[in-house]
Amino acid sequence: MTSISTQIALSAHDVEGAHLDLPDFHRWFAGLADQCYTHTRRIPLDALDGWHTLPGSGDIVHASGKFFTVNGLDVDIPGNAVPHWTQPIINQPEVGILGILVKEFGGRLHLLMQAKPEPGNPNGLQLSPTVQATRSNYTRVHGGQDVPYLDYFRDTSGHTVVADVRQSEQGAWFYRKRNRNMIVSVSEDVELLDGFCWLTLGQVHRLLLVDDLINMDARTVLSCLPFAGAGELSGTGDGFRDVVARSCGPAVRGVHSEDEILRWITDVRVRTELSTRLIPLHEVRDWHRTEYAITHETGRFFDVMAVEVRASGREVRTWTQPMIEPHGTGLAALVVRRIGGVLHAFVRASAEPGFLDVAELSPTVQCTPANFDVLPAAARPPFLDLALNAPASSIRFDAVLSEEGGRFFHPRTRYVIIEVDEDLEHPDFRWVVPHQLVGLLRHSHYVNVQARTLVACLHSLTS
Amino acid sequence: MTSISTQIALSAHDVEGAHLDLPDFHRWFAGLADQCYTHTRRIPLDALDGWHTLPGSGDIVHASGKFFTVNGLDVDIPGNAVPHWTQPIINQPEVGILGILVKEFGGRLHLLMQAKPEPGNPNGLQLSPTVQATRSNYTRVHGGQDVPYLDYFRDTSGHTVVADVRQSEQGAWFYRKRNRNMIVSVSEDVELLDGFCWLTLGQVHRLLLVDDLINMDARTVLSCLPFAGAGELSGTGDGFRDVVARSCGPAVRGVHSEDEILRWITDVRVRTELSTRLIPLHEVRDWHRTEYAITHETGRFFDVMAVEVRASGREVRTWTQPMIEPHGTGLAALVVRRIGGVLHAFVRASAEPGFLDVAELSPTVQCTPANFDVLPAAARPPFLDLALNAPASSIRFDAVLSEEGGRFFHPRTRYVIIEVDEDLEHPDFRWVVPHQLVGLLRHSHYVNVQARTLVACLHSLTS
Repeated sequence: MTSISTQIALSAHDVEGAHLDLPDFHRWFAGLADQCYTHTRRIPLDALDGWHTLPGSGDIVHASGKFFTVNGLDVDIPGNAVPHWTQPIINQPEVGILGILVKEFGGRLHLLMQAKPEPGNPNGLQLSPTVQATRSNYTRVHGGQDVPYLDYFRDTSGHTVVADVRQSEQGAWFYRKRNRNMIVSVSEDVELLDGFCWLTLGQVHRLLLVDDLINMDARTVLSCLPFAGAGELSGTGDGFRDVVARSCGPAVRGVHSEDEILRWITDVRVRTELSTRLIPLHEVRDWHRTEYAITHETGRFFDVMAVEVRASGREVRTWTQPMIEPHGTGLAALVVRRIGGVLHAFVRASAEPGFLDVAELSPTVQCTPANFDVLPAAARPPFLDLALNAPASSIRFDAVLSEEGGRFFHPRTRYVIIEVDEDLEHPDFRWVVPHQLVGLLRHSHYVNVQARTLVACLHSLTS
Repeated sequence: MTSISTQIALSAHDVEGAHLDLPDFHRWFAGLADQCYTHTRRIPLDALDGWHTLPGSGDIVHASGKFFTVNGLDVDIPGNAVPHWTQPIINQPEVGILGILVKEFGGRLHLLMQAKPEPGNPNGLQLSPTVQATRSNYTRVHGGQDVPYLDYFRDTSGHTVVADVRQSEQGAWFYRKRNRNMIVSVSEDVELLDGFCWLTLGQVHRLLLVDDLINMDARTVLSCLPFAGAGELSGTGDGFRDVVARSCGPAVRGVHSEDEILRWITDVRVRTELSTRLIPLHEVRDWHRTEYAITHETGRFFDVMAVEVRASGREVRTWTQPMIEPHGTGLAALVVRRIGGVLHAFVRASAEPGFLDVAELSPTVQCTPANFDVLPAAARPPFLDLALNAPASSIRFDAVLSEEGGRFFHPRTRYVIIEVDEDLEHPDFRWVVPHQLVGLLRHSHYVNVQARTLVACLHSLTS
């Protein structure tokens, strides 16, 4: 029997697919985009329906007590360029499910992907996992319809669980949010519902290069795929593609052992004295609530705002909700380098206020460059200029992708993979091999959501 | 060069030692116990010096704002036998260092152990790691003396870091407490200070069988030793010792793969809807503050009490502090079984209110049996009767050992390893191989402190 990681690698090499080729996919997707609409309208915060601003604290909560809350957060990081601040933050303690169902057709694994609109998507429809459900969602607090295919993930007996791990989301905007990232393989017949399609991993990888198409939830689940099989199928050449594929194999040795990487993460987590405390939202300083938004006095970072959504093809047709609207397009750049013929990625262990466990591995550079107009010079991330000035010839991946459209309004990040030939050194950074990142992704709280997107992008370069 | 895990296994086989044989050790230790004293006297809570009860909240805090705080905790676990309760808890967010220095003498690794009194030890002196220091300790908030050997752990350059991982402590008594468990190997000369001795791992293993000798901090560090080398040195026989040793080797396959174990832990962590909230100490219900203690109305569980300590051989000679005094001796039993010639331990994934991440692997049975007089029948742990009624012929390890004597007053637990021949099944339990537990111990938050003691005890049975 072919192992699941070999099946995954074979699927990554297949860009034809048993159901739709890529031109068919684009026609199908464009057709859906025509039928399906999501009208999102900015409304005053006081016009939120079913949501209340608590008089004592200023916190924004749902009448059911479920979904999520907008709280304040007090953040202390002694020694940091900005050692103390307060900010609004989304508090969503429920663990939702992000699940991709996979099944073999014609000897190739296909992934069941969903064309799904989200109110915060800049372009309405994006390609999401089979299932993307908060606990409130699937316990139907909102009284909506059933979540299709959910049962495959809630009761996995009789199926093969390929991955099942809770992963963090944006620690700058979410307080200790985790979602359960699952991949479940089935052999039985699966009914194909409207708005869903079967694609090979190779096809999904090609689509990653299309701006704002593969959504964040799909990308994080993809990053959790056991990807070691790419090593077996790699060529022996020294082209970039072969080198990346070989570096996904489990036998490849990096400049640091996994134990060394774990000890370095321990060290950063102990050295960084992050302490955070939820506070009433009206106690955040330098933020002001106006009719339409809670805004930082500089106009930077993000706003807390409110929308009214009218949608077709979603569980509930009309609703209002608060969202976070980031200011400016983010940048997430992963610098990679061949060392002894093995690809290494230069990752940073960095703290984000919403992380459960202080620090996680993040891209080489992760920031919103526009924010540095109002931040001290020391806050400028190391290697930002390297990323901004990378010559076109060194860029291996480049696309602008959206973050989660259910909580964030038009949240776009430029994801770039840059190959360099020089050694870089910094105590908060290490050179790690792609298969070491995949090894860490078997556990929670090691690789942040932006780095997970870049792991998925790096995997897309193996075939 | 011999790998560190082989060196560790060789040291485990050596019960002679280059410095002290075991009779010498006992004489040396008894001599120290005669000279060194710790007088601990129970005092009224209001007689605490340097500690205050905050008027608003009833919380007990140190004047410096450092060390630790006694807070209240509100615990919700829907579906649990006791679904909701409140309790006092020790809140100590600082990450301290528990470190053992190791060095080769005569071709054998020796561990630098310290004879150290703690106010809560029932017998004064116990054998502790080389370094056992809170951050307040080593940044000298208390104005005491330097912590000997600390620099080896604060600056490891030039040495070999054998282990460095933060691990949780008692989740029933501590709120999200973690200590950094470190093992550092040095080759340079090390001055041997009064109160310290070099022992082989084999000697330490023998001493684990002595009641109240190897302290909790030493046991948790021991559990983090890379122990795979025992597999190489094991005999081929089917005696218990050989089977345990072989099952420490990395190549041995268990009934579950490591990925399956990780997915099961994810599942338990998602299924268990633990939510906790720090509350003012005076808001805990069913607990009453009297002159000498904060006590549960049933007289069970534990008291918060206060002591005055007069000690020789400690950084500060006289001080007062609050402590937790558990009622009754705890039981921590690990049921093991040979499956296909490989030893498996039956571990439970269970929630404790103070855990950072919901649930960790715990012994088969972990409880204070006396508490069940006042708890609902459904709260009685599975397999408790099996552990209590185990025939003598099935018991492979049995000792009463102390928990941390710096925060807990006379906290004793009977640690037992029981071999069975029957299959046991329960959704919250899995059969795991010792080397899988050691693999998990490279990460934080997987194996709780009682299970870590039992890992160290299990390792002691390999030679």
